[in-house]
Amino acid sequence: MPESAAAPSSAKAVTACVLLIGDEILSGRTRDSNLAYIALHLNKIGVQVREARVIPDIEETIVATVNEVRARYDYVFTTGGIGPTHDDITADAVAKAFGVGIGYHPEAVKILDEHYKATGGEFTKARMRMARLPEGATMIENPLSKAPGFQIGNVFVMAGVPMVMQVMLDSLTDRLEGGATMQSRTVTGQIGEGTIAEKLGDLQARHPEVGIGSYPYYRGKTFGTSIVMRATDLKALDIVAGEVVALMREFGVEPAMGDPS
Amino acid sequence: MPESAAAPSSAKAVTACVLLIGDEILSGRTRDSNLAYIALHLNKIGVQVREARVIPDIEETIVATVNEVRARYDYVFTTGGIGPTHDDITADAVAKAFGVGIGYHPEAVKILDEHYKATGGEFTKARMRMARLPEGATMIENPLSKAPGFQIGNVFVMAGVPMVMQVMLDSLTDRLEGGATMQSRTVTGQIGEGTIAEKLGDLQARHPEVGIGSYPYYRGKTFGTSIVMRATDLKALDIVAGEVVALMREFGVEPAMGDPS
Repeated sequence: MPESAAAPSSAKAVTACVLLIGDEILSGRTRDSNLAYIALHLNKIGVQVREARVIPDIEETIVATVNEVRARYDYVFTTGGIGPTHDDITADAVAKAFGVGIGYHPEAVKILDEHYKATGGEFTKARMRMARLPEGATMIENPLSKAPGFQIGNVFVMAGVPMVMQVMLDSLTDRLEGGATMQSRTVTGQIGEGTIAEKLGDLQARHPEVGIGSYPYYRGKTFGTSIVMRATDLKALDIVAGEVVALMREFGVEPAMGDPS
Repeated sequence: MPESAAAPSSAKAVTACVLLIGDEILSGRTRDSNLAYIALHLNKIGVQVREARVIPDIEETIVATVNEVRARYDYVFTTGGIGPTHDDITADAVAKAFGVGIGYHPEAVKILDEHYKATGGEFTKARMRMARLPEGATMIENPLSKAPGFQIGNVFVMAGVPMVMQVMLDSLTDRLEGGATMQSRTVTGQIGEGTIAEKLGDLQARHPEVGIGSYPYYRGKTFGTSIVMRATDLKALDIVAGEVVALMREFGVEPAMGDPS
């Protein structure tokens, strides 16, 4: 199938868990935008996010959660808690989760030292904290603000600030081995999901190889449903999408491809 | 302290976990807005969200997760998966988690029947699914689109569509017993967090009763740091906020109360 760079559908699924670490997300003060960005980015290279957790800046919680999910998924991506202040405890907690020590990483120290010399900032003891990596970890480059993230085992530790997280994610992507790429089709129509639900369920039963999700939406006085189909097999996906289009037409609704406009 | 309706700081902490159920959040297609809304709403009545998880529409995952977190937190709030389509499996999964059956709830059937009669919609077999509740569950009223949520034990099951979730959250709030209300103060200054990090850490060590978070921000060419303090004790909070203001001034920066503008 030359029209797609997707791995063949026989490729195995490669899974990931995202850990958003930070009291500010749990308090509602900050609305997370990292999860959606990471999920979309990873899916392009064939890594499927299967779970995400938002956990507080509490060491024992981070340690327990990292150990639970790194055993369960192929990859773990964390955001948050790697800055210079006392509440930045992710690096220490991840070191503890892996049962290794933590210390100054010579290359990270050099990068930060040069950065602060170039910008006229002071390379304080607190900022030195950002050069501390668990033993055996490798740096994840941060072209934006220099303080690196790191990888240890299958765990990738990134910053929480979205712009910085995004450049780190770019930096680490070459290290990931993707599997089957999940493709999707969306068909949207101004129809209640309860109207098509039964036939849609039949369609799902006949096509277990395609995940069919039904998402109602409301836009002022109009409403409708988006049917999202996901599969690694493009051909199966197109067949099911065609059936959904036909199903909506059966109820007198002309659907559109894509999300509601 | 008549200026606040907060429970006294000696009140016990009441904790909650939020479960966002839905493939569409994990795929990155939909960016969640429910977590922040729920966290802010609950905090006002003294319920602190300590963890959140995003999990897929897979029954065994929902069952295992509900059972894990309902034992660990005072309250659990779920969003998503209670509509009329085949992928709406939350009610069945929660029934299984509690080891009870599931069936048509007479009052829910009546509400939906009247709703579809009034609106001219057809009360299809698929829509009947939305009247199925676990045995022993009580309805959560949905003034907006009628199909109810439900409560069983300490678990509150709500819709995923934000408008509907919000009216359900209002409907159920009287059933919650809050504890100590977390108050917060934010002090923002155009200063790098690495500059104040060491003294801020000292301040945190002297005031363990106040959680001090440091959040850097970037706005085009300006940058700075917001220090967010959280505690149930207003007096301690104000003392620490005063110290943070003094700390920033020590470094020649005039801070503002609140988030960066």
